[in-house]
Amino acid sequence: MRSENQSIGQSVSDADRSFIELARRAQIIDAAVETLAEEGYAKASLARIAQRAGISKGVISYHFAGKEELLERLVEQVYERMGAFMEPRMVAQPDPGERLRAYVESLAAYMREHRVQLAALGQVFHNMRNSEGKLRYGVATSEGLYAFLESIFREGQESGAFRRFDVRVMAVSVQAGIDAMFEYWDVHPEHDLEGHARELAELFAQAVRA
Amino acid sequence: MRSENQSIGQSVSDADRSFIELARRAQIIDAAVETLAEEGYAKASLARIAQRAGISKGVISYHFAGKEELLERLVEQVYERMGAFMEPRMVAQPDPGERLRAYVESLAAYMREHRVQLAALGQVFHNMRNSEGKLRYGVATSEGLYAFLESIFREGQESGAFRRFDVRVMAVSVQAGIDAMFEYWDVHPEHDLEGHARELAELFAQAVRA
Repeated sequence: MRSENQSIGQSVSDADRSFIELARRAQIIDAAVETLAEEGYAKASLARIAQRAGISKGVISYHFAGKEELLERLVEQVYERMGAFMEPRMVAQPDPGERLRAYVESLAAYMREHRVQLAALGQVFHNMRNSEGKLRYGVATSEGLYAFLESIFREGQESGAFRRFDVRVMAVSVQAGIDAMFEYWDVHPEHDLEGHARELAELFAQAVRA
Repeated sequence: MRSENQSIGQSVSDADRSFIELARRAQIIDAAVETLAEEGYAKASLARIAQRAGISKGVISYHFAGKEELLERLVEQVYERMGAFMEPRMVAQPDPGERLRAYVESLAAYMREHRVQLAALGQVFHNMRNSEGKLRYGVATSEGLYAFLESIFREGQESGAFRRFDVRVMAVSVQAGIDAMFEYWDVHPEHDLEGHARELAELFAQAVRA
């Protein structure tokens, strides 16, 4: 946000302005989420997003350098909120096996309540490319997720609860199983998402245990 | 192919013509594969594919109704060849556990030799949409793959070698693990693909066993 560096002594009108800016940015990101989820990446132009937000395209340009910056902030926002939801559910599980299960099941619980946000994320991940034509997100930017899962696996291996396996392959496969769970539910809305999550958690519980 | 319905009594020149047509169609599909893999879906126009094949766009239009038909034939061709490679390797394994392992490892062996074809397939799967804006391929058209994997799982469950689990969730997860293996190797070309395949096969061997 633009007010990050402001000093404590600033006037109320500055604080008000920064609050209004924050609210405006959130409103634009929400409109981008809806446009991506409902109309797909190719049709989610700044003009279309502005139209949905009921503002002019110039207002978006005031708050974001362009579509690229808007989408990057969108991804950050979805991830931050997902992390805030999941963290207490994971911290509550001292056992690494139970923490892995909590990871899969709390992600499914988050999907259930935030389907549109995750569909928008999928659109960005499958389509947004850098200047070299490579996907901007995906495997290349999942290092943080992989490292987090690997820390759980190493803890379980060190305590002897988990067998020896390649932690990177396991992390890539767990994340792929979760992404596919969302995609499957997105295509088949009648699918039992919570049942899928329980089965997936058990699949990996069996796969990692000593 | 256009010669499917020709009768046996046709002249040599008709047979020659159909052979030339087949070769021409294969050449166009090969050019489409290279264009998709190297330049991405958005840039793979019929004009660009024709340029790469060294023919005019009109020649493509003579052989295919449009980009959609060309891409559908491309997907069929890649799948047919992959199936022809994998089938004998799977049939050779009467044990369902070993057949599952052969599925994962023979797919990795095919990826190693056909990276460009699989990258092209990924481009089509992640981007091609039907008239309603839904992805043309992906979860919705993977029923054949899921059904095949499920038949292995049911056989193992009936013999008692596999535990009871939801065969659909396992099928979706196996396929997701394999797709992620390709994607990871595509982004990290130095990655040990065969090692990943062995680990992934072991992961699912542990996950399914009784």
